[in-house]
Amino acid sequence: MAEQHRVPADEHRRLTVAVLERLGTPPVAARAQADMLLEGDLRGHASHGLRRLDVLVGRVRAGLIAPAADPVLTWRTPSVLVVEGRRGFGPPTAHRAVDALLDRVVETGVAVAAIRDAGHLGMLAPYVERMAERGVLGLATTTSEALVHPWGAAPAMLGTNPLAAAIPTGDNGSGPIVLDMATGQVSRGKVLDHAARGVALPEGAVVDAEGRPTTDAAAALNGAISPFGGPKGYALSLVLEALVATLTGTALGRDVRGTLDTTDPCTKGDVLIALDPVAFGAGDRAPLQAFLTELRGLPPAPGHAGVTVPGDRAQATRRRNLDEGVPVDPGTWQRAREIAGEVGIPPAAVP
Amino acid sequence: MAEQHRVPADEHRRLTVAVLERLGTPPVAARAQADMLLEGDLRGHASHGLRRLDVLVGRVRAGLIAPAADPVLTWRTPSVLVVEGRRGFGPPTAHRAVDALLDRVVETGVAVAAIRDAGHLGMLAPYVERMAERGVLGLATTTSEALVHPWGAAPAMLGTNPLAAAIPTGDNGSGPIVLDMATGQVSRGKVLDHAARGVALPEGAVVDAEGRPTTDAAAALNGAISPFGGPKGYALSLVLEALVATLTGTALGRDVRGTLDTTDPCTKGDVLIALDPVAFGAGDRAPLQAFLTELRGLPPAPGHAGVTVPGDRAQATRRRNLDEGVPVDPGTWQRAREIAGEVGIPPAAVP
Repeated sequence: MAEQHRVPADEHRRLTVAVLERLGTPPVAARAQADMLLEGDLRGHASHGLRRLDVLVGRVRAGLIAPAADPVLTWRTPSVLVVEGRRGFGPPTAHRAVDALLDRVVETGVAVAAIRDAGHLGMLAPYVERMAERGVLGLATTTSEALVHPWGAAPAMLGTNPLAAAIPTGDNGSGPIVLDMATGQVSRGKVLDHAARGVALPEGAVVDAEGRPTTDAAAALNGAISPFGGPKGYALSLVLEALVATLTGTALGRDVRGTLDTTDPCTKGDVLIALDPVAFGAGDRAPLQAFLTELRGLPPAPGHAGVTVPGDRAQATRRRNLDEGVPVDPGTWQRAREIAGEVGIPPAAVP
Repeated sequence: MAEQHRVPADEHRRLTVAVLERLGTPPVAARAQADMLLEGDLRGHASHGLRRLDVLVGRVRAGLIAPAADPVLTWRTPSVLVVEGRRGFGPPTAHRAVDALLDRVVETGVAVAAIRDAGHLGMLAPYVERMAERGVLGLATTTSEALVHPWGAAPAMLGTNPLAAAIPTGDNGSGPIVLDMATGQVSRGKVLDHAARGVALPEGAVVDAEGRPTTDAAAALNGAISPFGGPKGYALSLVLEALVATLTGTALGRDVRGTLDTTDPCTKGDVLIALDPVAFGAGDRAPLQAFLTELRGLPPAPGHAGVTVPGDRAQATRRRNLDEGVPVDPGTWQRAREIAGEVGIPPAAVP
């Protein structure tokens, strides 16, 4: 990756907010979308960061995102929320769903949101983290464009279908367990980056157009990303794809579109699940805290730095980047400033 | 593995039922437990088959399983069911929970059961398959004895924590998608079997006592099983362990006991989740059917036999074994017949 530029978080956010508001996005929605691009870069996942602004703006201009859309939230049962995004940005839509789930789950113990016709949510961790902050166990999954091959064949037929989970650990200061993983072995962004730089990918990460494992990132551009963990990861990815499609009535496989392009309506879906441990009568967090302390304190195996609890590393990276500035590829920052000009923000007003 | 004996399914079931009834298990519970041992062997997972009868009988005799226990099912909210197993066998307890979830989920759209103080459930697939048969999407997970090391350290601290899911596909005859996977790279049974036969394990499957990757199954007996899929599999396993412990108030890590031994109370927990697609207003299965047909029809990648949908292979194995007889290790079959004698079944009455 090229040397990274460091931008104050506030400047990063202001640039995106300015662009989105200029395109007719109400302030709350602009802030929600801008914060998710910021979170991507803060946590070191540039593919979910400011780099996406170009596509988001292109989608607004193509009429594929309605920046002022007001989602329709319908409780079809006391625990089942269906959210019609009406082509709105993903983050404000999903945050509305999280708000509704959190209000409801204290009564019902479990609540599920099925979201359709909203834009790309960005990283999933922040949504489930909001649940964990309220003592609620959160799960989230979403479909995405077909980039991953099924185990045993060559073509990309599955999304990188991420799964996120946050498990509250109580108030001992160590934070929740936060999982946020794609079911692909590597991201599309990493394949593109390695292909551009002519750097090999790790073994097992990708296949070429004939389905043969390769470390050549360029060959993988005509091939596919491999599922993580071999056949088990494939099975998990397929189950997530089918679960989301079944509960949201959205597309599958190659019919999933509209998060990477500026040509197609967004046909992916998202599912959020909230579970309140209090409703289950099981509120004692001390054993979980003790267990995590034990894990973190284990002597490292040869060649390892020790055990981290999922979420620890992302939070440490996030804190460091908040202090030192958000790392952004110089080309991405330059392009974001150009976009600001393109949408009509006067140069003097560009952050 | 030694050459396998083939036993008619009915004979397999009758032997277990006879033993369990002799120990005071009511017929319905004996049948539920026997059917789960049968399912393990029918699907080619001997570690969940008749081999477990010895431990089950030992646990009954030690007072750790109460064969006639009646579980207490409490709806704490309209969607949250807490099940106290009262030391009963796992399968009849879990089937009671599935019955309750299926009755409820048609109203509520989602229902969750948290089970504690019940015995080992056996394979999880049959429980979620029962949900899919009714058009309901099922998820199941459970904790188990610490056999898997966390990523970055040597000691076994996590269960093989399986995740199961069944996604109904409608009535086109192809059956549901059924995932049932451990989050460990291999089973403890496979490690024991390979150690006994002096056969190497695949690379990446296990570590020795110092946490070094090894293919030596004997060295792994003092080491641990690796999580599938590296750090992602570890993160998933930890999340499942923490989720189950949080919702059921059961143990974590090395405190999980009582499914492999005849000395300790059973401290694991189980979580079942039922989701009714009809409640989400998204009932059209045609796109999912078309997608699965496309996957199954893909040309195989080099070195592969093609794509299977999770559950296909288990069902094919099951059907073949129902026809040809259930494969059982001769020693296991012999031992089961000895147990029948030990619990006082007259030789003439042993199947």
